[in-house]
Amino acid sequence: IHIAVLPGDGIGPEVTREAVACLELLSAERQLGLHFTEHDFGGVAIDRHSEPLPPSTLAACKKADAILLGAVGGDRWNDCAERPEAGLLKIRQELGLYANLRPVEVLQGGQWSPLRSEVASGSDILVVRELTGGIYYGGHRLSEDQASDLCTYTRAQVERVAHVAFRAARLRKGKVTQVDKANVLATSRLWRATVDEVAKAYPDVALDHLYVDACAMAVITEPRRFDVILTENLFGDILSDLLSVIGGSIGLLGSASLGSGGPGLFEPVHGSAPQIAGLDIANPAGAIASAAMMLDELGLGDAGSVLREALEATLLSGCRTPDLGGDASTSGFGAAVRERLQ
Amino acid sequence: IHIAVLPGDGIGPEVTREAVACLELLSAERQLGLHFTEHDFGGVAIDRHSEPLPPSTLAACKKADAILLGAVGGDRWNDCAERPEAGLLKIRQELGLYANLRPVEVLQGGQWSPLRSEVASGSDILVVRELTGGIYYGGHRLSEDQASDLCTYTRAQVERVAHVAFRAARLRKGKVTQVDKANVLATSRLWRATVDEVAKAYPDVALDHLYVDACAMAVITEPRRFDVILTENLFGDILSDLLSVIGGSIGLLGSASLGSGGPGLFEPVHGSAPQIAGLDIANPAGAIASAAMMLDELGLGDAGSVLREALEATLLSGCRTPDLGGDASTSGFGAAVRERLQ
Ligand SMILES: CC(C)[C@H](C(=O)O)[C@@H](O)C(=O)O
Ligand SMILES: CC(C)[C@H](C(=O)O)[C@@H](O)C(=O)O
Repeated sequence: IHIAVLPGDGIGPEVTREAVACLELLSAERQLGLHFTEHDFGGVAIDRHSEPLPPSTLAACKKADAILLGAVGGDRWNDCAERPEAGLLKIRQELGLYANLRPVEVLQGGQWSPLRSEVASGSDILVVRELTGGIYYGGHRLSEDQASDLCTYTRAQVERVAHVAFRAARLRKGKVTQVDKANVLATSRLWRATVDEVAKAYPDVALDHLYVDACAMAVITEPRRFDVILTENLFGDILSDLLSVIGGSIGLLGSASLGSGGPGLFEPVHGSAPQIAGLDIANPAGAIASAAMMLDELGLGDAGSVLREALEATLLSGCRTPDLGGDASTSGFGAAVRERLQ
Repeated sequence: IHIAVLPGDGIGPEVTREAVACLELLSAERQLGLHFTEHDFGGVAIDRHSEPLPPSTLAACKKADAILLGAVGGDRWNDCAERPEAGLLKIRQELGLYANLRPVEVLQGGQWSPLRSEVASGSDILVVRELTGGIYYGGHRLSEDQASDLCTYTRAQVERVAHVAFRAARLRKGKVTQVDKANVLATSRLWRATVDEVAKAYPDVALDHLYVDACAMAVITEPRRFDVILTENLFGDILSDLLSVIGGSIGLLGSASLGSGGPGLFEPVHGSAPQIAGLDIANPAGAIASAAMMLDELGLGDAGSVLREALEATLLSGCRTPDLGGDASTSGFGAAVRERLQ
């Protein structure tokens, strides 16, 4: 089983290193046969190859069974013709990774959350974000004085990601909340109509709709009302970052980006955080959680659960990085997780 | 001084009634000479005139010195050719109301917030939202199976609202945070460049930039770091609703929509909440706060401050509607505010 590793920029390499070390340990212990190769991606690829997604990296990803990504971006590349983030958008599109899954679960004892604990505790939400359409792919600088971004969606684009959400809901609490701005946007009205149609095939799943502005409030004030949140690309970006608040730190969250058949891409929800890069204080939990989602997706038995449990036990034991008010280092936290795996 | 009152739908009429009663009292006490006329707008206008913004309402608004609006919308009108919300978008555009000001202040004693009080207390943020551009005005249903929404901005559109934000910051803590998604959107890059230019005329104001996903997190985790948030139409919609969380209820927030020279429009940030309409439990504080902003804008001395202080004192006294955990009625709360005005 071949894993393409793209450490990327900022804290990407240091958190990815911890995740890979966990995977190597599990692979050795359980003979999973995981093999890793590293490739340049993002800002570091701009520096070395003048583009954020070099053909060699793309080719390696296409041949891999799964891709583990750190993070990309940094002000250093702001004035490049192609920014590091363009590589991210391109790899999502090239590999057809249309469904981005971002689970948020509030561990008991989540006293590091800015929310009162009676508000957040027991929340368990999966954001299913459409990842290859919408406003992310329609930008134009029309002139010195005008710019535009076109958001488009087709019924087929909405259908396929809606099926992912409904199938996921079946394995969870059986509820999908579709989020849009249907009182203003034409694409949102297409989303709503299409999701209503798809829902007919899942009579066992409850569906409701919410405007994005109301949803932003509701995820903070009553997070337990949600199970699966299904939404378009930009709203999913905002809402999933926001949701990290109820868990206490964006550093905890992993994600999976899946397409139809090809390799999936697994990456923490957090960004490259250049200001803390190299300080050995970044939280590797999001990268490790992403690695666990990868093991699930590769169908490697309970390896994913085992890694997830080690991660949660480590956090609950009080070993925490500074974003959670602790003083564990990146490498120290990774080592603590691996100790529990042994 | 002529005020056009548009009560609108759902809880709009009942909260507006309380605000108007406060204004009438103040006008009588201080000889402000306020006169009120009511006009159909939103769903109720669809029912009576087959369109959400009838020409007679628009004409009355154009002639008025200020407009006081309740709320519009409701599922009842979902299948109309023009929805109630279309009236809102139209009146903003017809009157050129390009700057939407939404202040959020956390009163001491805000123990009804879902946030830990040490996180929220002392926050004082003004959202300046661009209101007549962006993705709100570019929707198209391309076919049965495809839809699009075009987001456009011109430099001039960004400049004028940026000046509003910088001028407001000068009277506050002297800081503007401009929020966008410049790592993805072409319009965001135009915003960033334009705001950087405008900032040169305000060397006494500090400026920083934040991505919308990071901002959604930051307003919840460290709200005190913000003074003025300047952003485009859709992001402003989401962020200002979200910000209501730190104050404890969206029912508390008022807003002003201003253009260049014509009448301003003043409305609570909350929606029409049809499920609680007519129950006399809606919070009229947002409508009353909007009325206070209107008095400020009309240049009526300290009348606005007096109304705002009566409102805050009422809330701090423990008189609160159910959204804040209290048992005051809409009309009871309004009466309590008026008692303090006497
Ligand atoms: C870096 C950026 C382009 C990206 C996105 O908006 O998709 C990130 O915020 C994410 O959520 O993965
Ligand atoms: C009702 C809707 C069209 C409106 C908007 O999105 O502008 C509302 O949410 C608001 O914030 O005033």
